[in-house]
Amino acid sequence: MSLRIDLDRLHKDLEDLGQLGRDPRGGVSRPSFSRADLEARDWLKGRIREAGLELREDGAGNIFGRLPGAGRVVMAGSHLDTVVNGGMFDGAVGVLAALECLRRVKEEGLAPVKTMEVASFTDEEGNLVGDFLGSRAFAGLIDPDALRAGQTSFGMPLKDILAGTAFTPETILGASRERPDLEAYLELHIEQGPVLDTEDVPVGIVEAIAGKCWRLCSFTGRAGHAGTTPFELRRDAFLGLADFAPKATRLAAAEYEGSMVTIGKITAHPGAFSIIPGQVDFSLDVRSVSADGLAGLERALLTLAEDIAATRGLGFVSKLIDKAEPVRIPARIQDLLKEEAKKLGYETLSLPSGAGHDAQMIASVCEAGMIFIPSPDGISHSPEESVRWEDLDKGANLLLAAWLRLAG
Amino acid sequence: MSLRIDLDRLHKDLEDLGQLGRDPRGGVSRPSFSRADLEARDWLKGRIREAGLELREDGAGNIFGRLPGAGRVVMAGSHLDTVVNGGMFDGAVGVLAALECLRRVKEEGLAPVKTMEVASFTDEEGNLVGDFLGSRAFAGLIDPDALRAGQTSFGMPLKDILAGTAFTPETILGASRERPDLEAYLELHIEQGPVLDTEDVPVGIVEAIAGKCWRLCSFTGRAGHAGTTPFELRRDAFLGLADFAPKATRLAAAEYEGSMVTIGKITAHPGAFSIIPGQVDFSLDVRSVSADGLAGLERALLTLAEDIAATRGLGFVSKLIDKAEPVRIPARIQDLLKEEAKKLGYETLSLPSGAGHDAQMIASVCEAGMIFIPSPDGISHSPEESVRWEDLDKGANLLLAAWLRLAG
Repeated sequence: MSLRIDLDRLHKDLEDLGQLGRDPRGGVSRPSFSRADLEARDWLKGRIREAGLELREDGAGNIFGRLPGAGRVVMAGSHLDTVVNGGMFDGAVGVLAALECLRRVKEEGLAPVKTMEVASFTDEEGNLVGDFLGSRAFAGLIDPDALRAGQTSFGMPLKDILAGTAFTPETILGASRERPDLEAYLELHIEQGPVLDTEDVPVGIVEAIAGKCWRLCSFTGRAGHAGTTPFELRRDAFLGLADFAPKATRLAAAEYEGSMVTIGKITAHPGAFSIIPGQVDFSLDVRSVSADGLAGLERALLTLAEDIAATRGLGFVSKLIDKAEPVRIPARIQDLLKEEAKKLGYETLSLPSGAGHDAQMIASVCEAGMIFIPSPDGISHSPEESVRWEDLDKGANLLLAAWLRLAG
Repeated sequence: MSLRIDLDRLHKDLEDLGQLGRDPRGGVSRPSFSRADLEARDWLKGRIREAGLELREDGAGNIFGRLPGAGRVVMAGSHLDTVVNGGMFDGAVGVLAALECLRRVKEEGLAPVKTMEVASFTDEEGNLVGDFLGSRAFAGLIDPDALRAGQTSFGMPLKDILAGTAFTPETILGASRERPDLEAYLELHIEQGPVLDTEDVPVGIVEAIAGKCWRLCSFTGRAGHAGTTPFELRRDAFLGLADFAPKATRLAAAEYEGSMVTIGKITAHPGAFSIIPGQVDFSLDVRSVSADGLAGLERALLTLAEDIAATRGLGFVSKLIDKAEPVRIPARIQDLLKEEAKKLGYETLSLPSGAGHDAQMIASVCEAGMIFIPSPDGISHSPEESVRWEDLDKGANLLLAAWLRLAG
């Protein structure tokens, strides 16, 4: 029988870490460089030392624990930061399962050919200056001007947040120069969606990580008195959006496989009971696992909105807010994961990742793969986020088997 | 030729009054009992005295100027208060045209049988504690408990706002006891909608004043990650509203003549780019000129929303916020206005009033009628609110002719 992780130890690690940043609403609030995150960093460093791994931290605050070998590095990890009032599994599962794998490899006295390294990346959740700060810095994908200008999402300049730490925008920009020669990267993560749970499959093999495009859009019409403006003389901006929303959904579902569109944020102006909306602002979140699909759907949605505006005597404008290209997981990595799962006797499902992950950044410097375990009821970024321990056991054992095979 | 108003004098009065409460954004801000409104009250009292009319003020701060006769009172008026950053014609036109009528009657030495009285009602715009405070008090339609509890819409208790004045909640409640024996009430007002302007008709005869029903509604679904929740597993609360809005409009337009429905205020929760709305709150403004139509349409809209919720696996709840019953203008008053307009050679159009007016309250104590003049481009409650002077001339002359006929 192949090497297995110690589920009880992993379980205890997750529970211990989950106490750091525990918030009064029952969730975990551990944004990068918050007091709770600094505690979590110290805790992780202690665990890495206890495991007898070589501890290393780069200029972006990414933390590594190395089991040295002769060849290039095969890495596995994720992140320890959380959204505000999030859960205790998103990110933590990937870092602590990788740590548990290396503990088992070391305990068994195995000597893989290649260097194995567990990684914990800074600010995956983008609480500071956009998603994936740590893995983006690690991969050398940071725009220096944007980082130096670095206004954080909650208003305080990045350098003020970094003030109590060993890091500055310059050390973050230097992190990619500290990157070892990577052969491959694996990441175990909760699915954050309902597919595995609904299909009742314990392990997912990720085929692609969706790209995303965020636009802030507006339909503009003419405000008017709700009691005195006949229907035929109205130019109600909200009715434009009400027309657009279901058509946008149908367009994505029918013509762009593997794509999503979501309108999550809506503001009608002036926003009174008795006034017909003269303008409605809304967010458009477009995702696709294919670069062509993402670009094509984005274009088709803008055309749809312009057509609706023209038909209804409205205006339409939109502004690009953020964009990340999709990533395909190499067939070699997917096949290797499927083969190891088969050996372990685990049922798997191949699926795309609709959410972004550190692996998306690291895929630009080496082959990267991802393993998902089910999110019961599809819940994440919430105090109700959970995992089933038997699923975690399977996901972590698959990580161990695939990682060892990559490490030779 | 019949008696005519002095348009130049009325024009000058409107311009003089329009300077009081002039705000830096170019509009007029004259909420009741603001400094600007107190100035406007003093200015109006001066004009009433100058005209040789008997000045009277009731416990609600309603101001009257009387030309005594032998019989019951026939009254005409409107209000001098404005919305914040409103225009200089909404309300002012009705008070100052009525004042001009009485000046001309007095100048010509006419002695109508009945008592004629110009009225200016307090807080028609509902800046204090709901619409029509003055005319509601005058008609005896105030709920004493609600008034005494009186939290104003901008947070300060009503009694603090009244502190610098001669009025208290108790004097307001007593105003209806000071009401004279009324025979009829006429009100000249800007249309506040685009119908007369679009039809190019200078004078409107109001057939009915629409009732209104305000509900705060919510569709509830389930929040979820925009990237990881497949369309078929979503319960997107906003898509429920997007389905409801056009159907609600079609229902009102096709099956409830003389009715309107407007969704003016929309909030999606939690309101983020990457989160499917788990709840959407929205306002529902329903209006109809018929009581049956109002009740029927309200019921039909709630049924529609519940059906949509059931179909989409959503919840639907709503709460009544405000309600005012519609008022039919008596045929005698409408006919009299049409006949006098015909004598004057004015083209008229009969139309409902979608907006509420003081006449709606006073209709509960005597026969009430309304004359509209066009709002160019349908604009009101805005610094761009305007009138054409030739339309005002016609509206005021029709008021004079009809009023004199009612006064015998």
